[in-house]
Amino acid sequence: MRTLQYTAPRTLVVADAEPTSPAAGCIQVGVAFAGLCGTDLHIFHGDMDARVTTPLVFGHEMSGVITALGPGEQEWSVGERVTVMPLSWDGVCPACRAGHEHICQNLDFIGIDSPGALQEKWNVPASTLVRLPSSMPLDVAALVEPVAVAVHDVRRSELAEGDRVVVIGGGPIGVLIATVARHAGAEVVVIEVDERRRSQISDLGFATVDPRTTDQAAWIEEWTEGAGADVVFEVSGAAAAVAGATGLAKVRGTIVVVAIHPQPRELDLQRVFWRELRILGARVYRREDFERAVQLLSEGVIPTDTVITRIVDLDEAQAAFTDLESGRALKVLVKVGEVA
Amino acid sequence: MRTLQYTAPRTLVVADAEPTSPAAGCIQVGVAFAGLCGTDLHIFHGDMDARVTTPLVFGHEMSGVITALGPGEQEWSVGERVTVMPLSWDGVCPACRAGHEHICQNLDFIGIDSPGALQEKWNVPASTLVRLPSSMPLDVAALVEPVAVAVHDVRRSELAEGDRVVVIGGGPIGVLIATVARHAGAEVVVIEVDERRRSQISDLGFATVDPRTTDQAAWIEEWTEGAGADVVFEVSGAAAAVAGATGLAKVRGTIVVVAIHPQPRELDLQRVFWRELRILGARVYRREDFERAVQLLSEGVIPTDTVITRIVDLDEAQAAFTDLESGRALKVLVKVGEVA
Ligand SMILES: [Zn+2]
Ligand SMILES: [Zn+2]
Repeated sequence: MRTLQYTAPRTLVVADAEPTSPAAGCIQVGVAFAGLCGTDLHIFHGDMDARVTTPLVFGHEMSGVITALGPGEQEWSVGERVTVMPLSWDGVCPACRAGHEHICQNLDFIGIDSPGALQEKWNVPASTLVRLPSSMPLDVAALVEPVAVAVHDVRRSELAEGDRVVVIGGGPIGVLIATVARHAGAEVVVIEVDERRRSQISDLGFATVDPRTTDQAAWIEEWTEGAGADVVFEVSGAAAAVAGATGLAKVRGTIVVVAIHPQPRELDLQRVFWRELRILGARVYRREDFERAVQLLSEGVIPTDTVITRIVDLDEAQAAFTDLESGRALKVLVKVGEVA
Repeated sequence: MRTLQYTAPRTLVVADAEPTSPAAGCIQVGVAFAGLCGTDLHIFHGDMDARVTTPLVFGHEMSGVITALGPGEQEWSVGERVTVMPLSWDGVCPACRAGHEHICQNLDFIGIDSPGALQEKWNVPASTLVRLPSSMPLDVAALVEPVAVAVHDVRRSELAEGDRVVVIGGGPIGVLIATVARHAGAEVVVIEVDERRRSQISDLGFATVDPRTTDQAAWIEEWTEGAGADVVFEVSGAAAAVAGATGLAKVRGTIVVVAIHPQPRELDLQRVFWRELRILGARVYRREDFERAVQLLSEGVIPTDTVITRIVDLDEAQAAFTDLESGRALKVLVKVGEVA
């Protein structure tokens, strides 16, 4: 079978490998599509070399069909369409014992800390599988994982119907958060520097602001009749976004930190104090987020045509990363294998 | 009557003034004691010259006895012992309409934005008065306001019985937060650089850590059996404390920003994201916090002997600020007038 391996910074290798039979408790999935995300880009750049073991078969957003069952498997059948929630927790650390398994202190993120979806036959713990409706196209189904991220972020924010919501950063996760928030009844504006992205987002029916030409704080102040936004999602990863985010939130408003910020960022703590703001970290998802994501995709809530920019073959993945780097693409899917 | 006025940076003037009769809706209070706090120190340094109008009769922590009533007053009587919750909100801004009057977008903080307690006869809106038990000594009663701050901060943290709590900064508010948190059933450690303060805090029965000689993150990790603290109160105002605070909190732990940070601070947002931390601003108090503070002081929960370092006369206030600046004093009370 073909696999895609990260071997060194900016180096991906299509390598042949022998599929293995799934062990007890595991399931073999024939992978149809795998999405590339910001984390994969970090891996590709070598930014995560301290964490990953090379060669690494990466990939953690996917869809596929069950091709083999581990010994004694009762719950699943060959031929079922599935996606994988790529988290494996230890169940014993303080975070797990407190019920926060999804951010276990010793979390194994499958596709980063252990082999991922960019292989034709992927063995995963049965506990990670999430069933897909038979009517859902498998390219669409490869979006379940990023949609689950957005669902988790929106759920963490506790936003309510009628809330005014700001999304800073109009990349794939920003667009998905905006969509999920709007579906939950919020009015949403997306702050995005890139004109092409703003135009796409605008076509999806969202208000947009270019923070380089518009005084974003004044814009939000006017939009909210002097109150400030109920919820601000920081999805850009930019230092300037963090510096400005506190100025957009209402008294007792919420800022959700979704993006990766590799360096400490300057934050206006005076404003946090003054307005009694709430800043929440939000990371990955829980099973309920995955199930909700499947539902939202089934119901056609997610603009999949806009989000999926391109579908490439496994041996075109390296080139696809160039598109992601440039911001020209939202989501690129890799066609991994032919499935039923 | 005597008043204490801030006229210019590092300049306080004891000035004579004519008491005025309270207007309708107002009450005249004979001020017994007024406490000096960090905000008063900021005023004294001139750091708040852009906000205050000079000459300013400042002071917002106090105790006293009602000496006169505005026309038509029904609810209050001359001779009652009272303190003042020094907040006046507009009732119409978005924050007020959402029920957050205590952090009204146009809040008048009495003693900063309008004349305060450092005058023998002080007219205040009747709505700001809080009744004191007749058994409470008036020097102790001057602590109601800072205790209410601590009550508000602890309430905002939502800490639960059995929680492990870190207080960064062992000044007066830090000591009060530690006390209120312990009374709520938490185990508390105070991180404080000053040896003399650590020794005082230790005498009150709290664990202490010197962050210059102890690896505070390792200490907290061991203390919490690898989990991290449930709640961290940032009361120091120091940049280093902010940089370190995120490393002390458990997965889904809470950091409460109590201190003033005039400059933006570097914060480890990666840790906020990774552990899904919650950062909450906490400012001033609500009436329920004042009432709870009165109750805690009545019950002897607050170590008033330790907290009240000195009581000085009005004309010694300038010298008292030097003690506050050096960190040698926790709380200095000014004896403003003779009351019944
Ligand atoms: Zn765990
Ligand atoms: Zn207001």
